[in-house]
Amino acid sequence: MNISILTIGDELTSGMIQDTNSSFISRRLNSEQWHVSAMMAVGDDKNAIKKSLEYLLGISDAVIVTGGLGPTADDMTTASIAKAFGLKLYTDDSVLGEIKKRFQKFHIQWTDNNTKQAMFPEGAVPILNSVGTAWGFSLKRDGKIIVVIPGVPVEVKRMLSEGVIPLLRKEFKEPVQYSLQKTIKLFGLSESKIDEALSSENFKMSGVTLGFYPRFPENHIVITSRGSDEATAVGNLEIIKQKIVERLGKYIFGYDDETLEGVIAFLLTEKNLTLSVAESCTGGLITDRLTNVPGSSKFLDRGVVTYSNASKVEMLNVPSSVLDEYGAVNEQTAVSMAVGVQKLAKTDIGLAITGVAGPAGGTVEKPVGTVFIAVTDGKDTICRKFLFRWERRRIKEISSQWSLEILRRFVESKE
Amino acid sequence: MNISILTIGDELTSGMIQDTNSSFISRRLNSEQWHVSAMMAVGDDKNAIKKSLEYLLGISDAVIVTGGLGPTADDMTTASIAKAFGLKLYTDDSVLGEIKKRFQKFHIQWTDNNTKQAMFPEGAVPILNSVGTAWGFSLKRDGKIIVVIPGVPVEVKRMLSEGVIPLLRKEFKEPVQYSLQKTIKLFGLSESKIDEALSSENFKMSGVTLGFYPRFPENHIVITSRGSDEATAVGNLEIIKQKIVERLGKYIFGYDDETLEGVIAFLLTEKNLTLSVAESCTGGLITDRLTNVPGSSKFLDRGVVTYSNASKVEMLNVPSSVLDEYGAVNEQTAVSMAVGVQKLAKTDIGLAITGVAGPAGGTVEKPVGTVFIAVTDGKDTICRKFLFRWERRRIKEISSQWSLEILRRFVESKE
Repeated sequence: MNISILTIGDELTSGMIQDTNSSFISRRLNSEQWHVSAMMAVGDDKNAIKKSLEYLLGISDAVIVTGGLGPTADDMTTASIAKAFGLKLYTDDSVLGEIKKRFQKFHIQWTDNNTKQAMFPEGAVPILNSVGTAWGFSLKRDGKIIVVIPGVPVEVKRMLSEGVIPLLRKEFKEPVQYSLQKTIKLFGLSESKIDEALSSENFKMSGVTLGFYPRFPENHIVITSRGSDEATAVGNLEIIKQKIVERLGKYIFGYDDETLEGVIAFLLTEKNLTLSVAESCTGGLITDRLTNVPGSSKFLDRGVVTYSNASKVEMLNVPSSVLDEYGAVNEQTAVSMAVGVQKLAKTDIGLAITGVAGPAGGTVEKPVGTVFIAVTDGKDTICRKFLFRWERRRIKEISSQWSLEILRRFVESKE
Repeated sequence: MNISILTIGDELTSGMIQDTNSSFISRRLNSEQWHVSAMMAVGDDKNAIKKSLEYLLGISDAVIVTGGLGPTADDMTTASIAKAFGLKLYTDDSVLGEIKKRFQKFHIQWTDNNTKQAMFPEGAVPILNSVGTAWGFSLKRDGKIIVVIPGVPVEVKRMLSEGVIPLLRKEFKEPVQYSLQKTIKLFGLSESKIDEALSSENFKMSGVTLGFYPRFPENHIVITSRGSDEATAVGNLEIIKQKIVERLGKYIFGYDDETLEGVIAFLLTEKNLTLSVAESCTGGLITDRLTNVPGSSKFLDRGVVTYSNASKVEMLNVPSSVLDEYGAVNEQTAVSMAVGVQKLAKTDIGLAITGVAGPAGGTVEKPVGTVFIAVTDGKDTICRKFLFRWERRRIKEISSQWSLEILRRFVESKE
């Protein structure tokens, strides 16, 4: 099946905001094994909407339209589509009732222009919006399907899975009526190695597809499993997932919406362990990420960003002799920082990093991108050296990622 | 003038990567007062490229095509366009020489498939790529202009300003041959207030346009000034810029590529002042941002992320009595933290923040989003209270922004 995506809004063609819906929708459609013929954006202009819709209907079996369904005058998608096909608009009283209920529930003042959001072209079937006020609709013309939904990203995501995908499956008379996805998140293995692993015959199975999405510094594998019934789809997905875990398990830190910091928060909380962090080159990025997790105060006692040598000596007891002799970027300093912050905070674990983020400060021996990461629990201490070849911000990002990954493996290895 | 944008690549229609070029290009075209008729993306498919190009040429005076100009087999933009118009390909020897020189300069092994990047449809005029190997080209058909450039974002940006815009101005026979832009960056004033200010008659001037771009938590105003000669364009821009500075100056923290943290780094370095930071709810985000600036070790001595009460007492001498009686989120704690970190680090300035990032931890008196920010130089101390109504991450972001903005104003006020 060929599907096109049409996004509508002057804010897109003016470059004021960036369209993120099309990319998300196309990813979802591809996982259904439907082909995306074209993605197009036009402004809030009746003639442009009509022409682009006609063109896209000419090259596809269905067109998904997003945006321009709000209550204000510049929201003209519904009226433009009705006009394009010579259809009158009708008000759906049941939808209108639902929208009014939503206004009451959230104590929003009702204004009559909102009635517009319950108006549809003749012959259209409304599509529920469970997270907003603008409902969508579907319409058939000459055997082609037009699906219209609002442009708010959170509403697009919800309506796509709740309404649009099931509707298209039914209209396309697909034998597949059940599909599910799982995202596997990896770090520490190169794109090419993952690509190579995934192309193995071992991972081929009818009804199951694998997608590969590099998301610096992580790599994501999306398994899509489709079947005529839920048991088949779920079972097949589990088989392929297990095979991937067997092959790449060491590099997998989480699934679906999980983040590396979230996984660490879960592990530390579950094991009732406390953490303190000493950062130099990452400048606070590690604790920033850890504190993005709600409830991180349960395990994170404190962090220190010891940027000056004095701060490393005063707060963490890093020996001046080491700094004088070897500088601030070396294994001894990293280990001293980890041990120092763990003792200072009296936590179970201490994590530390020191490195050269650049662009200045590199030497032949320790070029920009040289990083030492240490973790200790007072008994065992690990230190790893890295050399990253990016610019300052990316060095900070991948350094924080490696720090968290080393911490994750360390905590996982503890009872 | 009506211009369309066509981006080419399977990685776009599969949702594997997100197209950022179209948004950038449309913003740039709008600033030239040209209208963007449509933005479209299709896969690496000869037929799709041909059809979409024909459609877009039908609705616009020019089409800018990006992507699919590399050396590999799936890069088929040039061949598809040549085929669409029944044109043969030729190899431009001078371009080929330039590409080979680039390979030598960067010590990259030459492979013959790179010759493809010097091949163009008959009648096409090559467009210099000064930052990559794939040159672009322009082609005229039936009075319409087709401009083709690679899809690598950094190359798009460079080639657009160096080659494409001047070429289009010339082809459109525009009297305006000179234009320049300035971005004014503001923080702390609402979108509606800025919008209201900008709609004033006072800011209207022939040849000058104002664009407004909300970039949470900042707001950016882009002045575009166009004239038949440089002096007029520069002079007019300066007049409007001054008017905006007079009206909104208090909220302006920087221009063009400047960041708030970069401006602070400049101010502190220039005034030879040192800084230490104590963070609670922002969890290290403030020092993370400050250390994104190269050379930040010149002014930043250290940061502490005092997440536990114990860490606030032990490292910053926040009185236990205050924490016991009032909790960790109040003016006394914020001020104690600022004074404490400044003394601990012996820096000129101490900056501190404490707050409730949520989603848990809020009370009726101190709901989620309550934040106190304090700054001191040992003599003067300022503390401000805020209540932000967002979720956890956005509270962290706007809290770090306000912390830096309060610091900026504090440092600016010092001699």
